[in-house]
Amino acid sequence: MNDSNTPSKAVILLSGGLDSLTCLAVAKAKGYDCYAISFSYGQRHNAEIQAAINIAKIYGVKEHKIIPLDLKLIGGSALTDNDIAVPTAPQEGIPVTYVPARNTILLSIALGWAEVLEANKIVAGVNAVDYSGYPDCRPEYIEAFQKMANLATKSAVEGAPITIETPLIYLSKADIIRKGLTLGVDYSISVSCYQATAEGEACGQCDSCRLRKQGFELAGIADQTRYI
Amino acid sequence: MNDSNTPSKAVILLSGGLDSLTCLAVAKAKGYDCYAISFSYGQRHNAEIQAAINIAKIYGVKEHKIIPLDLKLIGGSALTDNDIAVPTAPQEGIPVTYVPARNTILLSIALGWAEVLEANKIVAGVNAVDYSGYPDCRPEYIEAFQKMANLATKSAVEGAPITIETPLIYLSKADIIRKGLTLGVDYSISVSCYQATAEGEACGQCDSCRLRKQGFELAGIADQTRYI
Repeated sequence: MNDSNTPSKAVILLSGGLDSLTCLAVAKAKGYDCYAISFSYGQRHNAEIQAAINIAKIYGVKEHKIIPLDLKLIGGSALTDNDIAVPTAPQEGIPVTYVPARNTILLSIALGWAEVLEANKIVAGVNAVDYSGYPDCRPEYIEAFQKMANLATKSAVEGAPITIETPLIYLSKADIIRKGLTLGVDYSISVSCYQATAEGEACGQCDSCRLRKQGFELAGIADQTRYI
Repeated sequence: MNDSNTPSKAVILLSGGLDSLTCLAVAKAKGYDCYAISFSYGQRHNAEIQAAINIAKIYGVKEHKIIPLDLKLIGGSALTDNDIAVPTAPQEGIPVTYVPARNTILLSIALGWAEVLEANKIVAGVNAVDYSGYPDCRPEYIEAFQKMANLATKSAVEGAPITIETPLIYLSKADIIRKGLTLGVDYSISVSCYQATAEGEACGQCDSCRLRKQGFELAGIADQTRYI
């Protein structure tokens, strides 16, 4: 909540997926001055970046920063290493689509940019419910990141800490979609698939597609995702 | 300390400066299997990267990863923004050479790589004494990063957390140099200057040069740094 007359300035992590699109809509609805940040991190689904560019334009963000960061150099995930296949059936434990330290890396760079912008918020679509078992999507992780951030930055030391907001953290995918629809979100402009085609068509089979499909079904909403 | 017969596997943050060179020497002396990581982050002093490459070769690290990460895209520091001059006299408060969230970003990427490597240590030359007032060099910041990391990664969730070691954190520059000398370190191969020439010659005037010079003086050691 913003308790002064100056609008909050917020950096939104915008992957181009369903969750980040909803986050941007939530931030706009709260009256934040929105700055979007996306990462071109060697992910298979580069169609997401195109979706992010499109979404940023539609929502008229003040600035959209795309940071090239080749996590393929590190590897270790089906999303960043072409030798690891994206699974098409649910897995036990933490899936191979987990990207080592991904949210920590992305939030850290967002933190740096937020500091340069003198923004007081970072909004991230982290979700602890339909989170596929990723450790860096849990509330306790976000709390620990916040504590670390409060010690890391010059702005925090000088009395202006940057708050991490995760408006979707306790929502199911269906509830996220319902929330977005109340804000007029058109989900057809988002791309969630882990292996979307260059044209943004979804495979319909990966974890991310399954969660998204199920979300539309449970919300009782027609799924306008373009499938292969 | 490593209490099994298997050597610890460690990722060393290797900038090519005096502190990171000492860290690598300390890690080698402890018997760690050393993996070095450097960042080409649009810093003015790219001679540091060349020094890092040279140091990694001399110390025979298992692998040296150089991650291109253009922090000039974010800006906000004399080290990443050509419009902000590197100061040549001590400043009040946190200096303009502070790079927003830099250590958080670098440690996060090191964390991701450590996870992929199944390394159990990250060694960083963070220093709280001659630290130029950077908030992300303080022990309480490192402790908070450690807590966050213990919640962030798959490896930690599965019982193999990655420990951040900062062997220089409480040492003065003179003590760092003394420690390095007991380990046979040749400091002439390191580059610390914020605005070194392409050939690695130091300006002798920036914060980093001043701290380094003073360190050699206080340690009573001849300074073999090549100055302009």
